[in-house]
Amino acid sequence: MTVLDDVATTVGELRRTVSDLHSQLTKYGLVIWTAGNVSARVPGADLMVIKPSGVDYDELTPESMVVTDLHGTLVDGEHAPSSDTAAHGYVYRHMPQVGGVVHTHSTYATAWAARSEPIPCALTMIGDEFGGEVPVGPFALIGDDSIGRGIVETLRDSRSPAVLMAQHGPFTIGKDAWAAVKAAVMVEDVARTVHIARQLGDVPPIGQADVDKLYDRYQNVYGQ
Amino acid sequence: MTVLDDVATTVGELRRTVSDLHSQLTKYGLVIWTAGNVSARVPGADLMVIKPSGVDYDELTPESMVVTDLHGTLVDGEHAPSSDTAAHGYVYRHMPQVGGVVHTHSTYATAWAARSEPIPCALTMIGDEFGGEVPVGPFALIGDDSIGRGIVETLRDSRSPAVLMAQHGPFTIGKDAWAAVKAAVMVEDVARTVHIARQLGDVPPIGQADVDKLYDRYQNVYGQ
Amino acid sequence: MTVLDDVATTVGELRRTVSDLHSQLTKYGLVIWTAGNVSARVPGADLMVIKPSGVDYDELTPESMVVTDLHGTLVDGEHAPSSDTAAHGYVYRHMPQVGGVVHTHSTYATAWAARSEPIPCALTMIGDEFGGEVPVGPFALIGDDSIGRGIVETLRDSRSPAVLMAQHGPFTIGKDAWAAVKAAVMVEDVARTVHIARQLGDVPPIGQADVDKLYDRYQNVYGQ
Amino acid sequence: MTVLDDVATTVGELRRTVSDLHSQLTKYGLVIWTAGNVSARVPGADLMVIKPSGVDYDELTPESMVVTDLHGTLVDGEHAPSSDTAAHGYVYRHMPQVGGVVHTHSTYATAWAARSEPIPCALTMIGDEFGGEVPVGPFALIGDDSIGRGIVETLRDSRSPAVLMAQHGPFTIGKDAWAAVKAAVMVEDVARTVHIARQLGDVPPIGQADVDKLYDRYQNVYGQ
Repeated sequence: MTVLDDVATTVGELRRTVSDLHSQLTKYGLVIWTAGNVSARVPGADLMVIKPSGVDYDELTPESMVVTDLHGTLVDGEHAPSSDTAAHGYVYRHMPQVGGVVHTHSTYATAWAARSEPIPCALTMIGDEFGGEVPVGPFALIGDDSIGRGIVETLRDSRSPAVLMAQHGPFTIGKDAWAAVKAAVMVEDVARTVHIARQLGDVPPIGQADVDKLYDRYQNVYGQ
Repeated sequence: MTVLDDVATTVGELRRTVSDLHSQLTKYGLVIWTAGNVSARVPGADLMVIKPSGVDYDELTPESMVVTDLHGTLVDGEHAPSSDTAAHGYVYRHMPQVGGVVHTHSTYATAWAARSEPIPCALTMIGDEFGGEVPVGPFALIGDDSIGRGIVETLRDSRSPAVLMAQHGPFTIGKDAWAAVKAAVMVEDVARTVHIARQLGDVPPIGQADVDKLYDRYQNVYGQ
Repeated sequence: MTVLDDVATTVGELRRTVSDLHSQLTKYGLVIWTAGNVSARVPGADLMVIKPSGVDYDELTPESMVVTDLHGTLVDGEHAPSSDTAAHGYVYRHMPQVGGVVHTHSTYATAWAARSEPIPCALTMIGDEFGGEVPVGPFALIGDDSIGRGIVETLRDSRSPAVLMAQHGPFTIGKDAWAAVKAAVMVEDVARTVHIARQLGDVPPIGQADVDKLYDRYQNVYGQ
Repeated sequence: MTVLDDVATTVGELRRTVSDLHSQLTKYGLVIWTAGNVSARVPGADLMVIKPSGVDYDELTPESMVVTDLHGTLVDGEHAPSSDTAAHGYVYRHMPQVGGVVHTHSTYATAWAARSEPIPCALTMIGDEFGGEVPVGPFALIGDDSIGRGIVETLRDSRSPAVLMAQHGPFTIGKDAWAAVKAAVMVEDVARTVHIARQLGDVPPIGQADVDKLYDRYQNVYGQ
């Protein structure tokens, strides 16, 4: 399997990374049963590593992860890839800066998606992480490029690493799988907090100038 | 005990399966105390394996499971069968395709049941799993066939594997106990998400043609 | 310590029972920090075993439990008794059939208490366990018999083993500590489910004749 | 490092205390990812021990804690200090009685902060712990003394150990880090319960005279 030979070490590491990162989805209660998935682009190759379809989170191992090309065709692995593989691949093909994609049906983010309503930038944490409101993508059926195209068209010109696909659920992106998982955790957290805030009254958005300051500082100064 | 001799191996396996599956009910927070139960039909016999009455989930073992006939009469086991055994048995007697039944009082599904309101098909996941709205069954008292009859009459002509019994809670069915447990997990998840979505505004249903496409694809293509 | 000599074995067993039962309060999320307590009457003596004040749930042991008389005076133990001991003692003095008392500030039950609103009997589980609505007791300050008197006056003529003390939280009783803990778990569960049901519309109560049938059957037929 | 020599034993103990106390934040669900922090003043020195920036809660150890002066300048440690260090330091410089500070974005407290609405003193537990309503502080951007000044100006003349910083989240203080953590746990609990209570109707506050009695008794009598 020539295409894998050049990146065999990288793929081996990504199998472990992607497998392990699914434990963050269960830890934070973002997924039930088998309904959510993480993938990572293989740098230097038109490949990705993704969760197998219909396998329990408790049973995921590096070996059970699946390698496909960016159209979702199986390259290596014993299981069928996630049923969302086409959407992940579309994102990798059209957003070269993206190294990781996550999809969940996390409760509060999906609730905003059910109403096709963006999450307003009403908390400093939203300014930090999303740089503005969390946008809504179109309603799209699984089975062709519709979901991937909706993700890309919504996020291409946005600072947000998360999109709420209408009547479906959130997809998040990042420079790597870890960043995409962090965005999946964060979007559920802010979706929940703003939802609860709004249950008892109006929730004013933060002014754009302050959002810009928060986003700039967090993206450029924060962390080790 | 002649009736058990022919299916002894099957019954032994089902005791383990049914006992183990209860851990999914506690894992997903669908039950408290002893208030929920799983059963499995014994293929090739008019028997079922079901949870004993009033025993803690932590103390369930394959050995503590109970075998009854499909009218709920004890055939093998050291405990009394679940107080919901009559309802499970009625379903097995009248729906030959059903191999597993689950009953819980999971919070959000029961909340819809308290209002006798079906869960609208407002998310792609509901189209996938339930093929339309999750229907409500009649109010029925325990003690005779009323609950079982209400379940069967509601689900017989529905794609949904879940019914919200009015002012009581959800019952789910499946081709086996695993599928019925999955439906119990899923119905609580969609009950919660649609509830939360509707708290802040209208939640439009997905059009019937799209629901049909989702359901058909998920039932026929998805999985390993 | 003569008063303890006659019941030493019983007290030893109750120390373990009461200590262990607190793990149900944390398991079901009914308490935070040290804010909830279980007690048991010592049969055949004017004594009770109760949680020490201000000790973490993780650090409770049979040895750390406290024995007091029914006025809350310390009889045996190395810690001060729970600050709610006076209320527990008042209940034991005035309700001889009660063998266990539990107090929590569990979220949903306390929310009904904050509005001084009884939980309507809108679910079969409420008919089973409470035999009608869960009543509200008066607002009462800690420091004298006010809380205990409010509990007793509310529950004396009720089927309910739970009272929602106004602007404070639930107290539950039972024939023993286990039954009182079960009632504490159940009252939070039904408080939550009916709350959520009512968020999206009216929740009709079950008719009195049906409530009577549910209660009678559950109290007299159910269980092993 | 002369400044540390005199307090080396104390700093060693505080590293362990502060590291361990973060487990209470995760236990009670007050934080996600790395978004919350605990600090402790070093008695007898113008120093504090605080969480490192951007390190997972699971990976915190006494050794990874950071020592800074009260302006946030690193004195000892291998990581950068929390991005909230300036706010902690401002509090220690201006409130000499404070020995511990905690910051989280816990869901319900942050929801009240998103509306800039104080939590009314509607439960006996709020009277006990907060001595009145939980106040709101100003909206302030990170990067200078604004957050610290907002905390101090709000809490200086309040009995409450918690302030809800507008559109941001809660900060809590205490005589030591343990007390500040307890206040962080308690403020989320009362924020949640009063939120839920108010969802279904009005929630009357407790009268001031009764609040005073509750607060006085709890602060002076309660505990071991």
